[in-house]
Amino acid sequence: MTHVPHPAPRELTPEQARAAFRGGLKAPTSGYSAGWTQANLLCLPRAEAYDFLLFAQRNPRSCPVLDVTEPGEASASIFAGDLRTDLPGYRVYRDGELAEERTEVTGVWREDLVSFLIGCSFTFEAALLEAGVPVRHIEAGSNVPMYRTNRACRPAGALAGPLVVSMRPVPADQVATAVRVTSRYPAVHGAPVHVGAPGELGIDDLDVPDFGDRVEVAPGEVPVFWACGVTPQAAVMHSRPSFAIGHAPGHMAITDARDSGFQVP
Amino acid sequence: MTHVPHPAPRELTPEQARAAFRGGLKAPTSGYSAGWTQANLLCLPRAEAYDFLLFAQRNPRSCPVLDVTEPGEASASIFAGDLRTDLPGYRVYRDGELAEERTEVTGVWREDLVSFLIGCSFTFEAALLEAGVPVRHIEAGSNVPMYRTNRACRPAGALAGPLVVSMRPVPADQVATAVRVTSRYPAVHGAPVHVGAPGELGIDDLDVPDFGDRVEVAPGEVPVFWACGVTPQAAVMHSRPSFAIGHAPGHMAITDARDSGFQVP
Repeated sequence: MTHVPHPAPRELTPEQARAAFRGGLKAPTSGYSAGWTQANLLCLPRAEAYDFLLFAQRNPRSCPVLDVTEPGEASASIFAGDLRTDLPGYRVYRDGELAEERTEVTGVWREDLVSFLIGCSFTFEAALLEAGVPVRHIEAGSNVPMYRTNRACRPAGALAGPLVVSMRPVPADQVATAVRVTSRYPAVHGAPVHVGAPGELGIDDLDVPDFGDRVEVAPGEVPVFWACGVTPQAAVMHSRPSFAIGHAPGHMAITDARDSGFQVP
Repeated sequence: MTHVPHPAPRELTPEQARAAFRGGLKAPTSGYSAGWTQANLLCLPRAEAYDFLLFAQRNPRSCPVLDVTEPGEASASIFAGDLRTDLPGYRVYRDGELAEERTEVTGVWREDLVSFLIGCSFTFEAALLEAGVPVRHIEAGSNVPMYRTNRACRPAGALAGPLVVSMRPVPADQVATAVRVTSRYPAVHGAPVHVGAPGELGIDDLDVPDFGDRVEVAPGEVPVFWACGVTPQAAVMHSRPSFAIGHAPGHMAITDARDSGFQVP
């Protein structure tokens, strides 16, 4: 299956979306299954799991943990599907190197893998749109641009690495609204970590993201940066655990949790 | 030192309060060091640390982790004092049994102990008072009443146990305000888990708390229940790890973090 299925992506239930991805559809999931929470995935051997859980505790903006499986389990309390097949894309790392990109990982699965589901900023995009804040990469039908920054995460055990951010251009008169709206979702990255001045984050050229797609920043718009759930994969690349699996950036796990459940207060 | 020092407890800096406790003062810390965050303490051997960190992730209302030390470390990023001496009271558990209550734990300290600092509902009490909601145990100068409930926490590895709640009587016309105010502090237990109907939580007699002191519930007041950071110690008693140290209930770690830092959005 290579075409976007009917009904429209935003109308798909999580179960339908997962079935489409399991069937081979490969697409960024922004805009899919409106109202249902999407999550970043990181699978690590049990021996590395404490370091990662502590890394997440110490870097809650970029690594808000929504769920953790038992070793070897392929489902999670918020994900009734199969984590090995039901995402549209995966990245497999060996010794921190991207070894391959796959559409399923049953062939490389290990019984000692602990899977972490981590909040994704796609959750607050519906709230941004509802508040009248445009979301450029949705308008463009592309993947959100993501950048490695010069900010180090707080390390934990063997894990260290840079903060990765996602970027959305926001009209200057709506920046405050974007901050206010996303602040209400701390479990899915929350408020921006940086507004404007990409050079201060070590981003030399907004047109060349490290992950995802370039988007247009129009005159009068400000690039706004949110902590990104690709940060764990950047830590994997930096710290080189023997084995890890992540989602392909932008190609998320569509869970059975509702976005509204992560809104505070 | 056995008397409450000058200046008044609420005026003490965290450093001054910790020095007083280190000097031997034993007192519940509610009302101490206004504006500074108080925390529950649990110290477990490194071998048990993953299970606890996962337990906390799965029970975020009762176990919001604010900080985690490296094994053997006696200070934390939000606690510049000595975790072994600077709390007013400790409980030492062996095989899940309360073995002793002490005012310092240097004599039983182990180099493999990981210390967890866990959010405490004392943080939102100042906000309740500011909003005009009375806090009975502060008025009475006593410890907050805490109860084991019939609600099981979600287990993790070897750790399981009941939810423990703290109770504050709130005038019926201010219950909504109490919910609204405390909802803004999810990292320190957040909104109540239960309003009224203590029998539904398995609490037969509000006058007989499992921890802390009885307080008066006046006519027209409703008992309101928040998840409590003694829950980890209840899990220790239920699951019987070989060794653990906790704070004495109500006798918290006074940290160098500001309460305002935990307010959202």
